[in-house]
Amino acid sequence: MNDAGGRKAIVLLSGGLDSATVLAMARRDGFQCHCLSVRYGQRHSAELDAAARVAARLGAVEHRIVDVDLTAIGGSALTDSDIPVPEQPTTGIPVTYVPARNTVFLSLALGYAEVIGATDLFMGVNAVDYSGYPDCRPAFVHAFSELASVATRAGVEGAESIIHTPLIDLTKADIITAGTELGVDYTLTVSCYQADAEGRACGVCDSCRIRQAGFATAGLPDATRYV
Amino acid sequence: MNDAGGRKAIVLLSGGLDSATVLAMARRDGFQCHCLSVRYGQRHSAELDAAARVAARLGAVEHRIVDVDLTAIGGSALTDSDIPVPEQPTTGIPVTYVPARNTVFLSLALGYAEVIGATDLFMGVNAVDYSGYPDCRPAFVHAFSELASVATRAGVEGAESIIHTPLIDLTKADIITAGTELGVDYTLTVSCYQADAEGRACGVCDSCRIRQAGFATAGLPDATRYV
Repeated sequence: MNDAGGRKAIVLLSGGLDSATVLAMARRDGFQCHCLSVRYGQRHSAELDAAARVAARLGAVEHRIVDVDLTAIGGSALTDSDIPVPEQPTTGIPVTYVPARNTVFLSLALGYAEVIGATDLFMGVNAVDYSGYPDCRPAFVHAFSELASVATRAGVEGAESIIHTPLIDLTKADIITAGTELGVDYTLTVSCYQADAEGRACGVCDSCRIRQAGFATAGLPDATRYV
Repeated sequence: MNDAGGRKAIVLLSGGLDSATVLAMARRDGFQCHCLSVRYGQRHSAELDAAARVAARLGAVEHRIVDVDLTAIGGSALTDSDIPVPEQPTTGIPVTYVPARNTVFLSLALGYAEVIGATDLFMGVNAVDYSGYPDCRPAFVHAFSELASVATRAGVEGAESIIHTPLIDLTKADIITAGTELGVDYTLTVSCYQADAEGRACGVCDSCRIRQAGFATAGLPDATRYV
């Protein structure tokens, strides 16, 4: 498509499967991609290592990591080591939900965008095969778009921020199929909530289960390294 | 008034004059105040020391400091030491504007609120005697309120987040008068963009000038320690 003609964009990159696919899509569409990852106190750094590999492999212009110590707030199995990661399916919003995480991440992306003069933000949220987090829903993305348009210097000057969420209505299998067609090497990515230091997955947490089912439904080999 | 009946609230506390006044107002209104300050890479730590003193003096239940390294993004005289703080009035949005800072701060407050089960957030933004920052305007506060109502578990369950901005329409003199009536000791606070390690103010930056004029207009002695 290449319709962006080299326009700058911020791509939130977690190191997981979804955001890697989003980066490949943004590149396909002709964006110069400035990737942002956040060291927020997550249980392992393997996903940040994965993000760096993905950014380099998929031709990002830049990859910045911002430190935000969400352990000072806690309240999630991902930011409080006293709360275990569930290894069986649960109902409702699970304890792996990190309060306001995507709001914090998009806020940082918005600041970064303003500094480099970008108004396009890409984010891999998905409201089909996901863990039920409030801040992955279309209503959230819409509200953040509205906020972005009044929160910044660019907004005051009339520029419109665009939050791109190309995965929002896709199944996990659709995402994997699309990314595979774009040449994404999913063995570089880490989805597991409790991967080991080498990025090998547990195979039993919610995130691992959703990923496994996605590869199976897509009819593709599971590109995951397990412990 | 005491109408909150001990309800929990998050109060964003910068160590400056405005947020100290907001804390005093929230306490007057009967809130149990959990204060949040952010170490975001600002030029000096004197304002965080000031925030801790203010929280203790005004009876906060708790004071947490979250680290967010906005220097990884830069783009402001407050987060990039290569950009000097202006010592004369400037026009337009000044270089002391930190891109998306209040969005980041409110996001963290929202996460903290969710963890402790609060839905009231207090913030000292002011759109009268201020530096012209985009994220101090009523339109910004309104958009964040809308976002908060869909971004969290509480929002999904129907709870409404309330962003209290009791200073939004007050002049600096009004703020100082109101705070003085509530017993706020402004010598504890630091407003200066480039205070020294002891929290003594430069007297020439935009923030110092607005503060000085506020005390003068209020007809009160300037409760500021200068270098």
